[in-house]
Amino acid sequence: MRIIDCIDKKVEKLPLTTEEIRFVVEGYTKGQIPDEQMAALLMAIRLNEMDDRETADLTYAMMHSGDVVDLSDIDGVKVDKHSTGGVGDTTTLVVAPLVAACGGVVAKMSGRGLSFTGGTIDKLESFPGLNVEQSPEHFRRIVNDIGVAVIGQSGNLVPADKLIYALRDVTGTVRSIPLIASSIMSKKLAAGSDAIVLDVKTGNGAFMRTPEEAVDLARLMVALGKHLDRSVTAVVTDMNQPLGMAIGNALEVRDAIELLSNRISPEDPLYRLCLTLGAEMLMLSGLAQNEEEAVARLQEAIVNGAGLAKFKAMVKAMGGDERYCDPDHIDELCKVQKKVPVYAGRVGIVQAMDTEELGKAAQVLGAGRERKEDPIDPAVGIVMNVRVGDSVSKDTPLCTLYINDDTNEQDSINRVISAVKIGTSSPEEKPLIYTIIRGE
Amino acid sequence: MRIIDCIDKKVEKLPLTTEEIRFVVEGYTKGQIPDEQMAALLMAIRLNEMDDRETADLTYAMMHSGDVVDLSDIDGVKVDKHSTGGVGDTTTLVVAPLVAACGGVVAKMSGRGLSFTGGTIDKLESFPGLNVEQSPEHFRRIVNDIGVAVIGQSGNLVPADKLIYALRDVTGTVRSIPLIASSIMSKKLAAGSDAIVLDVKTGNGAFMRTPEEAVDLARLMVALGKHLDRSVTAVVTDMNQPLGMAIGNALEVRDAIELLSNRISPEDPLYRLCLTLGAEMLMLSGLAQNEEEAVARLQEAIVNGAGLAKFKAMVKAMGGDERYCDPDHIDELCKVQKKVPVYAGRVGIVQAMDTEELGKAAQVLGAGRERKEDPIDPAVGIVMNVRVGDSVSKDTPLCTLYINDDTNEQDSINRVISAVKIGTSSPEEKPLIYTIIRGE
Repeated sequence: MRIIDCIDKKVEKLPLTTEEIRFVVEGYTKGQIPDEQMAALLMAIRLNEMDDRETADLTYAMMHSGDVVDLSDIDGVKVDKHSTGGVGDTTTLVVAPLVAACGGVVAKMSGRGLSFTGGTIDKLESFPGLNVEQSPEHFRRIVNDIGVAVIGQSGNLVPADKLIYALRDVTGTVRSIPLIASSIMSKKLAAGSDAIVLDVKTGNGAFMRTPEEAVDLARLMVALGKHLDRSVTAVVTDMNQPLGMAIGNALEVRDAIELLSNRISPEDPLYRLCLTLGAEMLMLSGLAQNEEEAVARLQEAIVNGAGLAKFKAMVKAMGGDERYCDPDHIDELCKVQKKVPVYAGRVGIVQAMDTEELGKAAQVLGAGRERKEDPIDPAVGIVMNVRVGDSVSKDTPLCTLYINDDTNEQDSINRVISAVKIGTSSPEEKPLIYTIIRGE
Repeated sequence: MRIIDCIDKKVEKLPLTTEEIRFVVEGYTKGQIPDEQMAALLMAIRLNEMDDRETADLTYAMMHSGDVVDLSDIDGVKVDKHSTGGVGDTTTLVVAPLVAACGGVVAKMSGRGLSFTGGTIDKLESFPGLNVEQSPEHFRRIVNDIGVAVIGQSGNLVPADKLIYALRDVTGTVRSIPLIASSIMSKKLAAGSDAIVLDVKTGNGAFMRTPEEAVDLARLMVALGKHLDRSVTAVVTDMNQPLGMAIGNALEVRDAIELLSNRISPEDPLYRLCLTLGAEMLMLSGLAQNEEEAVARLQEAIVNGAGLAKFKAMVKAMGGDERYCDPDHIDELCKVQKKVPVYAGRVGIVQAMDTEELGKAAQVLGAGRERKEDPIDPAVGIVMNVRVGDSVSKDTPLCTLYINDDTNEQDSINRVISAVKIGTSSPEEKPLIYTIIRGE
């Protein structure tokens, strides 16, 4: 088998066989196929696409390029949740303990933030003492004991994806729906859960800019689940403004704790999305027959504090100081040198938000990182005060910046001002949830 | 300027600017753009194409990536001729001296053969003592003295093409008409002639398998000539069987000398094509008003021996033993250990020939090389005895193999037998010349 023949086939729009795809992934991971040939093949795939079977084969080959987590010794349906990445999205910290409180089993590996998007692992590290790196044995014990653990990725999971993604990043082959789907799904499958709920974001703060693209990606990932014997549901959701009001690590943890303490309105977008995702997770776990029943159970776990208790237990089990899980104490993790409001400066209605720019406004304050090795400051970030459609006057604060190092204060302020568009017309209302795609 | 933006533009089917194309060619030639990014861009070009202006810019940038030959101190219109490569095609050895005999100026750099196609430089080296490597000064002096010189490429001409071609070869991006056209034309333009006649071959012994592809390539190269201020004419010709009867180095030289000695019929395809190409060269040189006049002058130079005299003078000027230019002596360069006829073995009509396979049948005898560094034996090869449409009986020789080293004798015989298809029907006759495309 020769890589040049695989490239030629894809140039001619012919599908690659299962064996050819395995050959390519293995060969590239082992360094037997050079970057230039892989780059040519990726570009041919980017432009001539792949069908669902090819994409499933690619996902499977990538999944098996390294370690595959075996969760079979943990009882119950293990259910995972994944977001394609957004701004102000702390749903995992709410949904994972909430689903566990309803009897679900969530053994989740999560990532760090990069560029304008946050990462769950960074948020968890806001708790003093909490160690996101857990041995496989301890991870299993936590899940067995309390039904939920969210840890950093350990082991050599999907090395093919790391290599291929780095190559795609420099060769203009990132924006390929089959390549994006196989990248996400190979990592989710290697993480070992039986069922996966995907939150596919769309909008100016998401990788998929249009709902159509997002639906295509969502459909493909649900199809891949079917090909590869996992239960997958995808929820396509809006990311044309930050999901929650907080952008930052401890700030988002605070939102999660307030939600789990029933201090946030059920009308709040973060609350609504958490219930939608949690309901799909309960249904895939076989713990609820329908959405109504699932939502009722989740709300009960908010009202009676069972979700917060799970969260607290998880933080404690991972070595974190669980006293901060108290909604009256979490503020202590958000203490900063100064809080700077950014005012609207004019009368009008918020027309739109450049969500990516808001993410960057928080990043430059130290809430996120530009490069993998950059440090982050858990306390800093932004708390939004307005949403799209809100009326503002000159002295309405658009948000409050939480600042420790003021080096980039003006940069952050400028980004917020340019990101929040104020005008006179009433903006078109976008749905929070575009569609839910369930496997058969 | 960033290469990733150039890749993204081509992915989106947007044209690259002149500056972007120069940036890419310079950056890749200097090693500032890595192979994987260049491979991705080439694949995007392969699949999303380039327009004529982009291809002209690419040609110009490649042409200027190294030395550019300056022939301006040689009087007259310098006219070049290039073939896209075929089997049994010794037209350069006929046409170059013939055009010189009619007053034209041919200062030509030529290449070596690779795989199943022959190279003019290898053929010239059949002459004992002949040195194809001439200093620029001596090259000019020969051209000034006798009007024609055909030498090997010297200097650092179009290094970008060498690098890009090597990358295309391993990344499935060879078969792109804009990339082929820019590769050919950048080399022809760097070689310094004012006018160029291109012989674009089509058929099973050519790179362009269909006449349509060949016409596309021919049109594009003529358009590039116009963009870059050179007079270019392209002749699209058939390569569904060897052009001449000889395949091999001294064997093809013998054909050329016999033609220049007026010992080959004007009906012979090699003769006809030589007159067509030569006529276009004379017209581009301003030495003939029309084809009829040009052909008459060329035929006169055959009949009166002026063409052969130019050939002889060139061989002598390059250090070769010119006595072999006598048609009664050239046979001495074709002496081999044994001559092996290959018989038809059945009654019928020659339906078709796999021309590439015939080229390989000669190559395995030592007439061509598999790798650049392989030695070749000038005397060996194949002399065909039949053409498509000829009737054969069992004991009709299809050809005669000229052999010195019989290691691959059986391999060569088998290739000839499988290449020459014999059947009962009369095959469709293909034109020798499909079309002639002239610049305005």
